[in-house]
Amino acid sequence: MDEAAVQDIPTHDVIMIGAGPAALSAAIYTTREDIETLLFERGVIGGLAAVTDKIDNYPGFPDGVEGLNLAQDLQKQAERFGAVIELGEVTAIEDEGEFKRLETTSGTMRARAVLIATGSDYKKIGVPGELELYGRGVHYCATCDGAFYRGKTLAVIGGGNSAVQEAMFLTRFTTHIDLVVRSTIKASDVLQQDLQKFVDDGKITIHLGTITDEIVGVDNAVDKVMATKDGQKVEFKVDGVFVFVGLSPNSQFLKDTPVELDEVGLVLSNEDLQTNLPGVFVAGDIRSGATMQVASAVGEGATAALKIREYLEGRAHPVQN
Amino acid sequence: MDEAAVQDIPTHDVIMIGAGPAALSAAIYTTREDIETLLFERGVIGGLAAVTDKIDNYPGFPDGVEGLNLAQDLQKQAERFGAVIELGEVTAIEDEGEFKRLETTSGTMRARAVLIATGSDYKKIGVPGELELYGRGVHYCATCDGAFYRGKTLAVIGGGNSAVQEAMFLTRFTTHIDLVVRSTIKASDVLQQDLQKFVDDGKITIHLGTITDEIVGVDNAVDKVMATKDGQKVEFKVDGVFVFVGLSPNSQFLKDTPVELDEVGLVLSNEDLQTNLPGVFVAGDIRSGATMQVASAVGEGATAALKIREYLEGRAHPVQN
Repeated sequence: MDEAAVQDIPTHDVIMIGAGPAALSAAIYTTREDIETLLFERGVIGGLAAVTDKIDNYPGFPDGVEGLNLAQDLQKQAERFGAVIELGEVTAIEDEGEFKRLETTSGTMRARAVLIATGSDYKKIGVPGELELYGRGVHYCATCDGAFYRGKTLAVIGGGNSAVQEAMFLTRFTTHIDLVVRSTIKASDVLQQDLQKFVDDGKITIHLGTITDEIVGVDNAVDKVMATKDGQKVEFKVDGVFVFVGLSPNSQFLKDTPVELDEVGLVLSNEDLQTNLPGVFVAGDIRSGATMQVASAVGEGATAALKIREYLEGRAHPVQN
Repeated sequence: MDEAAVQDIPTHDVIMIGAGPAALSAAIYTTREDIETLLFERGVIGGLAAVTDKIDNYPGFPDGVEGLNLAQDLQKQAERFGAVIELGEVTAIEDEGEFKRLETTSGTMRARAVLIATGSDYKKIGVPGELELYGRGVHYCATCDGAFYRGKTLAVIGGGNSAVQEAMFLTRFTTHIDLVVRSTIKASDVLQQDLQKFVDDGKITIHLGTITDEIVGVDNAVDKVMATKDGQKVEFKVDGVFVFVGLSPNSQFLKDTPVELDEVGLVLSNEDLQTNLPGVFVAGDIRSGATMQVASAVGEGATAALKIREYLEGRAHPVQN
């Protein structure tokens, strides 16, 4: 490539891919320290947090906070210090040494450092009512929303390790759980043995070979789950539904890049949150080992920003010595 | 020990040592999941955050937040879910397998899991004005408070790696910095070479062999630093003072325990934030690798709580699979 062409490529100090809690927190830190930062968001600014009804466990909000409000406040805070958010997508990353070359929907760009913070989505089962009642009785995270179901009944949909484990966990709160399993339970032997105790105690009822057809709401809240078992219609009258059928990491654009992913498609990193590519960092729900919690994503975003600063300064940043 | 004596010892699911942002966030998570949790705090609830005037970069507060308000809100949120905070101190930890035995100012206790979150303090130089003007012009963290000094002048006190590095970092904001060094500069050769460029550019002036005597305030804000060099009184008229003379980790009580510390006295952990003692976890500013940022401490607290839950359940907790 000739010199003139190189100079035509827009170059940024940091490009962040995604604008959820991890990236916005990182951007608060980088831009507050005058490190020029551009964020790309292909969906909703604020990510999963923005479409979450109420977040009860993000520290600092004693009575919880509306997900959309938190997302807007994170955006305001990052923009206050100079972060620029572009609606668009990064489609490829290439390592050119000092610079990373990014293909984006706004053309080719270069960045001295990159933060991957595209998050993960919960897999959906794709039945009527699931999207409409999301956050109004349909949930995908037991740690986030289980505590809203004290003394209530739930359906849990799924038959893998996490469905079984989270169903058992949710019995801390619930009076009864219907575990709705499409075929058979695929969880580990140990988990299945544990599960049996909850069945014996009458806390969980297992429904094998049961295909969920619809989640039915009344007055904007979950009323029942309709399903088919052995060709017969069955229904489960419940206060809420938790779906655990897997995670869908937003890492498709990394498939043909040198960035290393784990077997699920999450991005691998070292203790400095740096991927196998020097200068390319990762934070939040797309990181292998992520907890799917806003608090953790925010903390990793802040830490990643400090590590990016160290990287750009070409040295480790001692806290105090 | 006989059976009766063992049964007399108060036993808790989780004991957290410290009640700063890391422990309070962890307690929000554990107690919200009905894991009984007792916190010990020997100083101020909220830790360093509580005595910080304004925190500008804790994500979720677009215009910043008073440290004391954030601390009180974290406390309220943890107590809302059932966390109990006891004013007192843990003086020893012993590993008894399933239980950890803790000596405390309220007597001997046992816990199934322990979180060490005692934080670190910045070392003080111990001159008149330092404490009185803390947060009103006297600072210990460049990432936290540097951005308040755009277009202003500063004195930086210290001569080690972090003093030199943070002084260079602070020139992003300031018009001039007086670097006040008690004896000679102890920073690495590379840092000293970098520093010379800032001196050549007139951005930093180095004062070797200069002992700070007093930080003088006018109208509750820093006005000047008074010092002695070669037996002569000197003074530096500045808008603020950053002191970088080291960290003082609150880990004295761990000295005679099996918990492994690094060379500075910070607690070592694996990627699950677990120390070398199974069931004993660490989060926040006392962790080796800590960033001294509220956001990071909060994120680690949340992550540690999820790891504690996994530990208490006797298995790894899959996010989704």
